[in-house]
Amino acid sequence: MVGPMSKVVVAVVGATGVVGREMLRTLAQRRFPADRVIALASARSAGTRVPFGDGTLEIAVATPEAFEGVTIALFSAGAAAARELGPEAAQRGALVIDNSSAWRMDPDCPLVVPEVNAEALANVPKGIVANPNCSTIQMVVALKPLHDAAGLRHVIVSTYQAASGKGQAALAELDAQTRALAAFEKPSASVFPATLAGNVLMDWKVGQNTDWSEEELKMVHETRKILGDQTIAVSPTTVRVPVRTGHSEAIFARFARPLGAEEARSLLRNAPGVKLLEGPYAPGHHPQPFDCEGTDDVFVGRVREDLGEPGSIHLWVVADNLRKGAALNAVQIAERVLANR
Amino acid sequence: MVGPMSKVVVAVVGATGVVGREMLRTLAQRRFPADRVIALASARSAGTRVPFGDGTLEIAVATPEAFEGVTIALFSAGAAAARELGPEAAQRGALVIDNSSAWRMDPDCPLVVPEVNAEALANVPKGIVANPNCSTIQMVVALKPLHDAAGLRHVIVSTYQAASGKGQAALAELDAQTRALAAFEKPSASVFPATLAGNVLMDWKVGQNTDWSEEELKMVHETRKILGDQTIAVSPTTVRVPVRTGHSEAIFARFARPLGAEEARSLLRNAPGVKLLEGPYAPGHHPQPFDCEGTDDVFVGRVREDLGEPGSIHLWVVADNLRKGAALNAVQIAERVLANR
Repeated sequence: MVGPMSKVVVAVVGATGVVGREMLRTLAQRRFPADRVIALASARSAGTRVPFGDGTLEIAVATPEAFEGVTIALFSAGAAAARELGPEAAQRGALVIDNSSAWRMDPDCPLVVPEVNAEALANVPKGIVANPNCSTIQMVVALKPLHDAAGLRHVIVSTYQAASGKGQAALAELDAQTRALAAFEKPSASVFPATLAGNVLMDWKVGQNTDWSEEELKMVHETRKILGDQTIAVSPTTVRVPVRTGHSEAIFARFARPLGAEEARSLLRNAPGVKLLEGPYAPGHHPQPFDCEGTDDVFVGRVREDLGEPGSIHLWVVADNLRKGAALNAVQIAERVLANR
Repeated sequence: MVGPMSKVVVAVVGATGVVGREMLRTLAQRRFPADRVIALASARSAGTRVPFGDGTLEIAVATPEAFEGVTIALFSAGAAAARELGPEAAQRGALVIDNSSAWRMDPDCPLVVPEVNAEALANVPKGIVANPNCSTIQMVVALKPLHDAAGLRHVIVSTYQAASGKGQAALAELDAQTRALAAFEKPSASVFPATLAGNVLMDWKVGQNTDWSEEELKMVHETRKILGDQTIAVSPTTVRVPVRTGHSEAIFARFARPLGAEEARSLLRNAPGVKLLEGPYAPGHHPQPFDCEGTDDVFVGRVREDLGEPGSIHLWVVADNLRKGAALNAVQIAERVLANR
């Protein structure tokens, strides 16, 4: 797919968005081995500049022709753009890594979290790799070592998701609402269906003919695809909290064989991508969004055996939804692709 | 206990606190049949005034002698004060209704949510009735009709708890942190172990020799006592979110016999104290703290059957933690006590 001799040209599509900017930051921070990085977005943003490393990049329009000569295209431009431009980029020889939901459930597109199922990158028939949903990524990174040891059967998960998962406009609206609250004014909402600041919201569309939201159904289907087992049951309640960045998840997991808290901790201690918080639980001593913002790891804490079902495990999992939940995971996929060629 | 002939004198102990003030507001709003209401607090607050109805009450010092002639004493003054002054008040003939954790697990003190186990008020050997923890009250109100129909076996619950559950100082600190965030300044924390504004925290002490917090263990033991069944398993993860007032809970419940979502909804539709949000789930169409602040009901929404365990049910439950979670429940207990005499 990505030839060994060619120069490495990386395109970031949707470079003005909150995840696109984070992709550029991540490429620079990790000294991604690109000979050239180009920033693409819609015509509206053409000519503006976005930060990259010590300098800036000028935005070019994301046309099909813009992908000529591109080695890897990191898409974070929404599902419609990914459906239209992803195949155009792939047809021109680019390996597409798409952060939207457009290609995730396509059987011909691997859905990859490198720590969990990097082997799926061996077969990319459409030239498109899908980056999973933010809330799914951090959950499967934490569950993978436990699944390998004991066979995951059922996950019940409640999320505490940050505003930045909904993009730049959502983040700006939360900030404006927070300022309004601080000034004792009534916050207004247009990106969110209601006030998020000082409140708790479920702002995702409901799936068709179901009581579950689209966000919840993503966690169900993507977890099964990434772990390669359609018999795993996933029961999510997805909730938005007034946090800028950093998703938290309260996870209950049942396994095919009983798993104790000590064994779970020893499995998580050296698991790739995981940072385990150990020591006695004390007030405030647990993974929290403020501490995880801008970091790469999936933080796991409060590992404990269930009180009602011995052998089942609770975890508290926090990660930066823009980094491991989006930009970093996409860049890590790109790193694997380059390493494999 | 409370004689039929005497004049009704109600004392609110801890009247300057966030729950004490709410108790006074609730007594006035519900036109509680008191001949006299007196406001007590520590010596520090003596002589200051607190709002009551259209006027104010002067704070008197909560000494043992202050309870002479008191019919019902509503305590919200913390566990230490309740342990010391509760028996003094009871000895002087007052029926004590205590909002702290001091007496909740005492086998001689009924732990009461009137919609759930009002019958426990028939036997109050110490003259002390305990008001349950806020996060427990709203959960058992929602689960009671389902338990009666199908036999509750296991609850897995993740909470989204408001700052006011920790009292007036915590609320003030969240407000100050919110103003700091809005001004791009670094928030400081002293009541909370870390910043709550823009973050998610677990700020409760850990229980002894356990991985569970004291708040989580309260939900375990109080739920069993209120529902009168020590074999019910409760697995909580308690979490504080940057919300002023209104606790939310994502609840998974398994029963002795399978329960469908339609049956659960029909059981909840007319359940006492419950307000069921029906209709199709849409973004923002669910119980949320902003809508529940200052209301009396326990709001239940997103009733759905589990995807992994048919016959198990998910609920999203929100209530005002100062009202039904504390002051209102205490006043409702007092109303039952008066009605029974």
